[in-house]
Amino acid sequence: MKSRLSCLALLGTLLMTPITWAAEAQPNIVIILYDNLGYGELGAYGGGVLRGAETPRIDQLAAEGVRLTNFNVEAQCTPSRSALMTGRFSIRSGTYKVPRVGSPDGLTLWEVTLAELLSSRGYATGIWGKWHLGSSEARFPTNQGFDEWYGVPRTYDEVMWSNADESNGVAPSIGSKQGWDEKRVPAQYIYEARKGEAARKVKKLDLASKRTLDEEITDRATAFIKRNAQAGKPFLAYIPFSLVHMPTLPNPAFVGKTGNGSWADALAEVDHRAGQILDALKAAGVEENTLVILASDNGGEATHPWEGANGPWRGTYFTAMEASLRAPFIMRWPGHVPAGRVSNEIVHIVDLYPTLAHLGGAEVPRDRAVDGVDQMDFLAGKQQNSNREGFPAYVADRLSAIKWRNWKLQLIQQDNMYDPAVPLAIPRLYNLLTDLREERSVAIDNTWILPLMTDIAGQLKASFAKYPPIESGAPDPYVPPN
Amino acid sequence: MKSRLSCLALLGTLLMTPITWAAEAQPNIVIILYDNLGYGELGAYGGGVLRGAETPRIDQLAAEGVRLTNFNVEAQCTPSRSALMTGRFSIRSGTYKVPRVGSPDGLTLWEVTLAELLSSRGYATGIWGKWHLGSSEARFPTNQGFDEWYGVPRTYDEVMWSNADESNGVAPSIGSKQGWDEKRVPAQYIYEARKGEAARKVKKLDLASKRTLDEEITDRATAFIKRNAQAGKPFLAYIPFSLVHMPTLPNPAFVGKTGNGSWADALAEVDHRAGQILDALKAAGVEENTLVILASDNGGEATHPWEGANGPWRGTYFTAMEASLRAPFIMRWPGHVPAGRVSNEIVHIVDLYPTLAHLGGAEVPRDRAVDGVDQMDFLAGKQQNSNREGFPAYVADRLSAIKWRNWKLQLIQQDNMYDPAVPLAIPRLYNLLTDLREERSVAIDNTWILPLMTDIAGQLKASFAKYPPIESGAPDPYVPPN
Repeated sequence: MKSRLSCLALLGTLLMTPITWAAEAQPNIVIILYDNLGYGELGAYGGGVLRGAETPRIDQLAAEGVRLTNFNVEAQCTPSRSALMTGRFSIRSGTYKVPRVGSPDGLTLWEVTLAELLSSRGYATGIWGKWHLGSSEARFPTNQGFDEWYGVPRTYDEVMWSNADESNGVAPSIGSKQGWDEKRVPAQYIYEARKGEAARKVKKLDLASKRTLDEEITDRATAFIKRNAQAGKPFLAYIPFSLVHMPTLPNPAFVGKTGNGSWADALAEVDHRAGQILDALKAAGVEENTLVILASDNGGEATHPWEGANGPWRGTYFTAMEASLRAPFIMRWPGHVPAGRVSNEIVHIVDLYPTLAHLGGAEVPRDRAVDGVDQMDFLAGKQQNSNREGFPAYVADRLSAIKWRNWKLQLIQQDNMYDPAVPLAIPRLYNLLTDLREERSVAIDNTWILPLMTDIAGQLKASFAKYPPIESGAPDPYVPPN
Repeated sequence: MKSRLSCLALLGTLLMTPITWAAEAQPNIVIILYDNLGYGELGAYGGGVLRGAETPRIDQLAAEGVRLTNFNVEAQCTPSRSALMTGRFSIRSGTYKVPRVGSPDGLTLWEVTLAELLSSRGYATGIWGKWHLGSSEARFPTNQGFDEWYGVPRTYDEVMWSNADESNGVAPSIGSKQGWDEKRVPAQYIYEARKGEAARKVKKLDLASKRTLDEEITDRATAFIKRNAQAGKPFLAYIPFSLVHMPTLPNPAFVGKTGNGSWADALAEVDHRAGQILDALKAAGVEENTLVILASDNGGEATHPWEGANGPWRGTYFTAMEASLRAPFIMRWPGHVPAGRVSNEIVHIVDLYPTLAHLGGAEVPRDRAVDGVDQMDFLAGKQQNSNREGFPAYVADRLSAIKWRNWKLQLIQQDNMYDPAVPLAIPRLYNLLTDLREERSVAIDNTWILPLMTDIAGQLKASFAKYPPIESGAPDPYVPPN
């Protein structure tokens, strides 16, 4: 391993990375974020034909850019999306878990989102798909820096309420509809919104509208790309697709496509939609000047009968096992990111915030803790090593594991989201290069690592003293105590 | 799934595949067989940097040829090598398990090896590395069709006997040397042999000679390639490398190469050796006219502290779990095999025998059961589907599982070689596309498959009536009962 930023810079708190990257060029930025797409689904990650569907478009994207094998996310949808939008671990923002229906939720308006940063630098900003960072209109994406939005404020579990007895390729969940009273627990909706206008309920979120949502997302995102390319305006297109979140059902046009069942059909759609976005960039003549990121928000779907594939990793989402933390990540930027590179260096989803903000010419806020570090030099291959050596992994509001280089300290034992999370009296240490499935603790042979791990946790705690975390459910306006 | 050979052709018994492939061209054939190299080690299979070592040469080979994700081997070293050499499931040949030291072992001379077939058609034939198909000189490879051999008759476990107390990067096995008396249980040797000459003991097999064996193998194999290329003689180079079989220790020149420990260093050597073979083919001007196969003999090493990586698959070698059955397989033949193809179709190591024999212009014997089917049209991309739909998986002499398309019937429960193998009262059926880790039996939902599985087992049993299996330890000369 070569030298890199010291441990003290790990959390990136108030550390300003110099803006060296094409601030004036302001590339377009496309973030394709799949939902619960496990590490092992895509062909480039050892899936594809193994899962019954080739993914040629995404594999080609990987061949044209950099692919990470140690890209880390938070353990759930809401926290990961919060980290992406703010560059901050979700524990800081009160967004550390998927909110229950009806509970106060979301990002306070005090947060400065990536969309707000880029918007302030002249970017057109759009999001199509799941927000999951506030289900009250005041916290909709169009009040958090996006010019336009089409999608759902929350998530897709609720699709099951109204459809559990449909014979629609969906195994009924016991009790899904039994006793459900829409007057008491309302159905969820797909919304359309524009900045400065009232949001509009478009239609109910149900099995049928979930099935066609990614097609609608693609239509709107590609129109946005075309429109802004023609106008010569730089853009941020944030495309959080609905697939492969349960119920994992493909668009009707993809039913039977692979002959290998609905999961494989959905995977074929995943690849097709990415291909449509890429085609739109090419058709609009902005392929060269657009940085494309394709990633997933957390570990693979794990809700029977929809079972994702996490490659060699163990565990489920909502835990701190590697299957939960490692997600696929591909970045293409012709002429800037070398083609076909694969790296096992640690990158965290919080890092995208400063990296992309700087590309757009924006600075990250200095009045709060920002955990992300600018990774552009690393991603562009100007340096071999990531600017991050490790990070603390929270599951909801509990510090559950700490990663540093190829080591992982496990503080809480929990493989499956439905099992209890049990604190370990003696933390376990895994060498993730030799023990991919986190089976053999080597703590006693490597006690020299423990102080480094303690440092990582300690730095975060120290920063909490200066910047107290926002409580979950905190109302607007939020005013920091200092 | 498209139509293909019917179930009845599954076992290939006495089925003659027409020779349509370049019989007159007689390509050179190189078989690089790694030892206990798990499915998940190579970069092309999702390993590489994940394991601490890039494998650029082998990944490039995959990019230039076809890569299989459902290449199936037998569960142990000896059976797989037997199947490769004879085209017959090892249960037929009495070679269905790794023999104990001192027990009668090996292939009877009645068997017709791939080397004998190709030798009869004018091929030069060489093997460098582990034979494991007969530790008495009468059954050495030079008496089974090979012109030359350098390597070990048995395997590498014995390296530990004489070195367990060396402080040589090897964790001592309890009792390895305690009480070992070389007079009673002799040490093992590296041999050198030529057809028609007495074999020569070169040196003791110990930690030091194991470490350098793959270098010696490479030197001899590349000299053979150069010599025969110059002579214009077609050749079969069978290169069963020692890595990554335990003790998994790299050549001294590779110690510290990656900075990621000895396993990663060994993996770097694996890639380097393959690169040297490929370079030799190019230097000798025979790259175009040489078919190269790179594969492994069984599931990943699983002897602490040497732990292999099996990608998404579960289990260890010496079981019938997918981690045991699926091995990496890459084939390159410029102009004949399409570049960059990946297929999840089932191919079995027995299939290489007829496939390669036919390429060399030889016919497979008609007086015995041959289980392999010619796969050249499939491997060359002339057809989408394999000529094999399934196979019975034996562990030693017990039928333990049956595979058919994406389904697997598990008859015996055993995840780990050290656990008991327990017959299942109700066999389990797994959908290997949706349930990579063989966790959820769907037998009750898919009882239509069970008769097809029963057919596969039934055909094999029926062929046993006509061609009784050779007993383990059978002496020469072997005379079939019919």
